[in-house]
Amino acid sequence: MFFPRLDEVCKQKKSLLCIGLDIDIERIPPFLLTELDPLFYFNRAIVEATHDCAAAYKLNIAFYEALGIPGWDLLERTLSIMPPNVMIIADAKRGDIGNSSRKYAETFFKTFAFDAITVNPYMGFDALQPFLEYEDKGIYVLGLTSNTGALDFQYLKVENEMPLYLKVAEKVVEWNFVYGNLGLVVGGTHANEVAQIREQAPQIPFLVPGIGAQGGNLELAVKNAVGHDGRGALFNASRSIIYASSGHDFAEVAHERAHHLKEQINLILSLNNNLGFWDEN
Amino acid sequence: MFFPRLDEVCKQKKSLLCIGLDIDIERIPPFLLTELDPLFYFNRAIVEATHDCAAAYKLNIAFYEALGIPGWDLLERTLSIMPPNVMIIADAKRGDIGNSSRKYAETFFKTFAFDAITVNPYMGFDALQPFLEYEDKGIYVLGLTSNTGALDFQYLKVENEMPLYLKVAEKVVEWNFVYGNLGLVVGGTHANEVAQIREQAPQIPFLVPGIGAQGGNLELAVKNAVGHDGRGALFNASRSIIYASSGHDFAEVAHERAHHLKEQINLILSLNNNLGFWDEN
Repeated sequence: MFFPRLDEVCKQKKSLLCIGLDIDIERIPPFLLTELDPLFYFNRAIVEATHDCAAAYKLNIAFYEALGIPGWDLLERTLSIMPPNVMIIADAKRGDIGNSSRKYAETFFKTFAFDAITVNPYMGFDALQPFLEYEDKGIYVLGLTSNTGALDFQYLKVENEMPLYLKVAEKVVEWNFVYGNLGLVVGGTHANEVAQIREQAPQIPFLVPGIGAQGGNLELAVKNAVGHDGRGALFNASRSIIYASSGHDFAEVAHERAHHLKEQINLILSLNNNLGFWDEN
Repeated sequence: MFFPRLDEVCKQKKSLLCIGLDIDIERIPPFLLTELDPLFYFNRAIVEATHDCAAAYKLNIAFYEALGIPGWDLLERTLSIMPPNVMIIADAKRGDIGNSSRKYAETFFKTFAFDAITVNPYMGFDALQPFLEYEDKGIYVLGLTSNTGALDFQYLKVENEMPLYLKVAEKVVEWNFVYGNLGLVVGGTHANEVAQIREQAPQIPFLVPGIGAQGGNLELAVKNAVGHDGRGALFNASRSIIYASSGHDFAEVAHERAHHLKEQINLILSLNNNLGFWDEN
């Protein structure tokens, strides 16, 4: 089961940090461009430098896919060098009718052995079911996304009672009774709404992007996203860590940033008396 | 511009038919498995046999992606054998925050030269904008999908006035004023709702799946989806055409099915006095 394994890794590393490997030839340190295989070199250096701080890595598939076949090859090789005690999330935001979603699930859970995936709820339950049927995997459903476009549909009040993002959270709770492997993506840029969603879905693990380059309020996001026991949320930063330096010290600086962010999260937890989780045996 | 070019092809071929190339090793005729490259052989044979009837082909990316790197290679080679007077749609249902959507748009419009794409509206405008900025391309936004899961969120009444799928249609009309290259995916399995959406978005071209294996009512779907001039909609069938026979005659039977469906659509148009489009000069 993904979420218990994730909890275990978080405990071992005392970290709720997820690092996003959004690979981009235009953002990596220019001196790497003379390497034979600069993108792989970059990913490997970042993973080697940061994995002591990271409970998980999130690979945004868009950045790999855009490279065509070499991008999928890069994805495969990046997966092959992942250390054992870290969870790997495909940030793919997929979702389609049943027989197509079955293929997408196959892509990320069989062809590539990810531990978890992000999926889009717009097409409803039967679009998600093929993913959920992989009981060992974690399925993070987009609830409230971190971008401004979230306002267009996710904030609309549905059936006269609640915004769409809360309705999605309600459904995720319902569907989780059957499968037990659902999570929610909840943007850290909307820290107040994070509290609402936590109330709607008290037991559902969150994946919280938007606290790095996107500028979300870390303290509020952490306070509002974690459960009373200090677990149940993973906080993702991508660009603000991996592209923090474009010099020869890029991996070292990425480690500093990752370590700092991990410690900041833990400080917020401890100030809220939420660190009991780490001390369990 | 995609939509005027699509209109031109539809006129030339007197066809509003789109054929979905949902490649699947378990569905292709078993005798092909002894070929060196059965999936490519299948796609090529289907395209060669049916392109006189098809205004467009839709490649559902899930089926290619699931094969890993060989799948993207198959996609590339399938694109390379497409005849000139046919439009190629990436049924990808993508959508992410701006910098990620930019990469997805790059994937399908630059790395692979598709003419159009399907995208998911859940994340709102800034998730779609990077696609829309490719002015020559067509962007079909999921409005009402053909699956039963559409009931979970798309039918919810928002802001006390209309179901979410109509709200999406309303937004698509609004955004189209700027870009002029938007379309809507409207499932043929919900033929009555198709009429509602046509009323909400009179000028927006539709891509209508669900009339083949998914069992939508073709007559109602066609009547309700096309504009008064008989244009503005493309009807997709995948499995019911390409997997109609698993014998040595599979390409021939696919052609028969495609031809029949194209003619059925035209008959419905003519019974509704909607064939003026074909006779324009």
